[in-house]
Amino acid sequence: MPTVKLVDENSAHPIVREVFADIKATKKIDFIPNIWRALASHPEHLRLCWTRLKAIMAPGKVDALTKEIIALAVSATNGCNYCINSHTAATQKLGLDNEGLGEVLAVVGLFNQMNKLADAYQVEPDILPAPR
Amino acid sequence: MPTVKLVDENSAHPIVREVFADIKATKKIDFIPNIWRALASHPEHLRLCWTRLKAIMAPGKVDALTKEIIALAVSATNGCNYCINSHTAATQKLGLDNEGLGEVLAVVGLFNQMNKLADAYQVEPDILPAPR
Amino acid sequence: MPTVKLVDENSAHPIVREVFADIKATKKIDFIPNIWRALASHPEHLRLCWTRLKAIMAPGKVDALTKEIIALAVSATNGCNYCINSHTAATQKLGLDNEGLGEVLAVVGLFNQMNKLADAYQVEPDILPAPR
Amino acid sequence: MPTVKLVDENSAHPIVREVFADIKATKKIDFIPNIWRALASHPEHLRLCWTRLKAIMAPGKVDALTKEIIALAVSATNGCNYCINSHTAATQKLGLDNEGLGEVLAVVGLFNQMNKLADAYQVEPDILPAPR
Amino acid sequence: MPTVKLVDENSAHPIVREVFADIKATKKIDFIPNIWRALASHPEHLRLCWTRLKAIMAPGKVDALTKEIIALAVSATNGCNYCINSHTAATQKLGLDNEGLGEVLAVVGLFNQMNKLADAYQVEPDILPAPR
Amino acid sequence: MPTVKLVDENSAHPIVREVFADIKATKKIDFIPNIWRALASHPEHLRLCWTRLKAIMAPGKVDALTKEIIALAVSATNGCNYCINSHTAATQKLGLDNEGLGEVLAVVGLFNQMNKLADAYQVEPDILPAPR
Repeated sequence: MPTVKLVDENSAHPIVREVFADIKATKKIDFIPNIWRALASHPEHLRLCWTRLKAIMAPGKVDALTKEIIALAVSATNGCNYCINSHTAATQKLGLDNEGLGEVLAVVGLFNQMNKLADAYQVEPDILPAPR
Repeated sequence: MPTVKLVDENSAHPIVREVFADIKATKKIDFIPNIWRALASHPEHLRLCWTRLKAIMAPGKVDALTKEIIALAVSATNGCNYCINSHTAATQKLGLDNEGLGEVLAVVGLFNQMNKLADAYQVEPDILPAPR
Repeated sequence: MPTVKLVDENSAHPIVREVFADIKATKKIDFIPNIWRALASHPEHLRLCWTRLKAIMAPGKVDALTKEIIALAVSATNGCNYCINSHTAATQKLGLDNEGLGEVLAVVGLFNQMNKLADAYQVEPDILPAPR
Repeated sequence: MPTVKLVDENSAHPIVREVFADIKATKKIDFIPNIWRALASHPEHLRLCWTRLKAIMAPGKVDALTKEIIALAVSATNGCNYCINSHTAATQKLGLDNEGLGEVLAVVGLFNQMNKLADAYQVEPDILPAPR
Repeated sequence: MPTVKLVDENSAHPIVREVFADIKATKKIDFIPNIWRALASHPEHLRLCWTRLKAIMAPGKVDALTKEIIALAVSATNGCNYCINSHTAATQKLGLDNEGLGEVLAVVGLFNQMNKLADAYQVEPDILPAPR
Repeated sequence: MPTVKLVDENSAHPIVREVFADIKATKKIDFIPNIWRALASHPEHLRLCWTRLKAIMAPGKVDALTKEIIALAVSATNGCNYCINSHTAATQKLGLDNEGLGEVLAVVGLFNQMNKLADAYQVEPDILPAPR
């Protein structure tokens, strides 16, 4: 059960109304996902979060599907259930099928393993070219 | 300092020789990265890790650059220094420039934030279509 | 479902009885939260945990509400559902309202993001004064 | 070594100049911390991060010292070295002495332990009042 | 709810059939645990995971119960519910009683606390003998 | 560099003197590891931590080497450098050789991978017997 009362989709608060309308338009969905209804209990924080998410998730050098795959990889590494559900659905909507999902998760699992082995053996970085 | 003595690149152990040769050929590099020299202290485990990594990282439904980006996203989320260095270098080698790197890390940072907010508000998954 | 049978609130085990009575008196509550009923399956560990928690959570240089806010920040960062519920309730009892909770969680989300960016860019500490 | 070249404090990029000037004025410091010099490799992301951090860290219902203590608790829980250094220094600047720091970290350590015990015993949330 | 449809225990896919039969024979169980039914949505990944798990979990220098205890310690540290359930059951099957489980989890909790204190105080490794 | 000044091994503070002497006697070492010198900046917290660690690490149903292996598994999963060094050394002192260490870390790596896959596929616990 959420720790705050989820704000109604038809909230009268002007900031909330504006952000909720933009979420629906931008994501082309007809409901407000629960995370945004929770964040709306603090309208200014809702706006800060949404504005930034919208800017960062817009396709640029990296395309929209790759961005959702990154979001899924981060969410699975953190074990965030809500987020895993949400980003799995988003990658499917953008065309990743079950086989592709299996491949993505295989890479996620692999490097969670390799990360811990690299930490455990305390290996130092290989000599690499200086950063550009 | 590594917790085990790194195995020499010219090790005479047959499994280690075979795996080290395959690492150089597959990755088109002329040295053995430190993580593999550490894992070589247990040759069977070295072989298990390398065989699996080679299979999973081969391009399939998901291309090689996207796989390295996933590896970087996981490594940054886990805060594994060796791995961050290694996968940053690999994404650059595959063509991601500094602006692209900035975009990738912006997404990584964003969802580490959103993950914690979703957990903190204990929001329940939105109703999504059944898995396929 | 818990992995051990939760110990009854009216347990006859002398250590458990003593600790349970002290939990109720110290926290001014009339039930034993589930975590303590689980820990009671190993009475000595229950006592070690409670004695230490009681000592650390007593107000000192840092007041009780700030200590519960720290507990919530740690629990949200770790994604521990039981703990998030428990410490959200505790901060509310100590006077933090929903707007204050929103502010606290905004800071928690912010630094989970900044932590990953600092790790990902491998920035070295700024030169700071020597520790006192 | 950072994975990108840190941007010079006297960068000529207009967004970077503006953000760097605001960082110095807002934090009352005369240098640019390394994390902002790294983020400046992607000026738009620098601006998004700084704008949001400035808004969230301004005192509101929660005071500035408590916000830095939350930042330190998050950073210690994530094990982010750069961030631990930075926020330890910030709490000292705002008046937390070594004894207070010891108290804060005692709480951080305590709940990292309790979080894992609650997870391990899979205890379910106590029945709490409905969220407001 | 799983993010993929769990593969039926009587799947006709040859790789899945072979792996499922080996799981039942090796673990001496008469059902396929849910994690393997999920992994089976990508048969090659299922095979890679099972082959490696079977090799690593076979008793060697380290006995089977200790290996399950390590698995439980890792799972509790990561807060993975499914895994905590599965490895708690496995340690019980191998003879660990509730008192032993309490001892194991006491150690897990203790070092989750100590890890964060060591990180928070940024203590440097003690001078130890060179690795062998 | 530690965030607090490490307390001198010959500190005159009565609590610190008593705990330091007990650490040397209990661990059969002739120096005080850095973590305890850092914790000594808050003598009461030092005492709380040491008393509990000593009680939990004493052999009971679980032997001393297994307890150090759990400590190493937790530390590697958390990526705590100081702790990994310290517990690797402790396991070696108690007789684990490099091959045994390789086996332990193989299990640690394996379940860090499996944990993330179980989380990512959101598999629900198998039906297990009720807890005892």
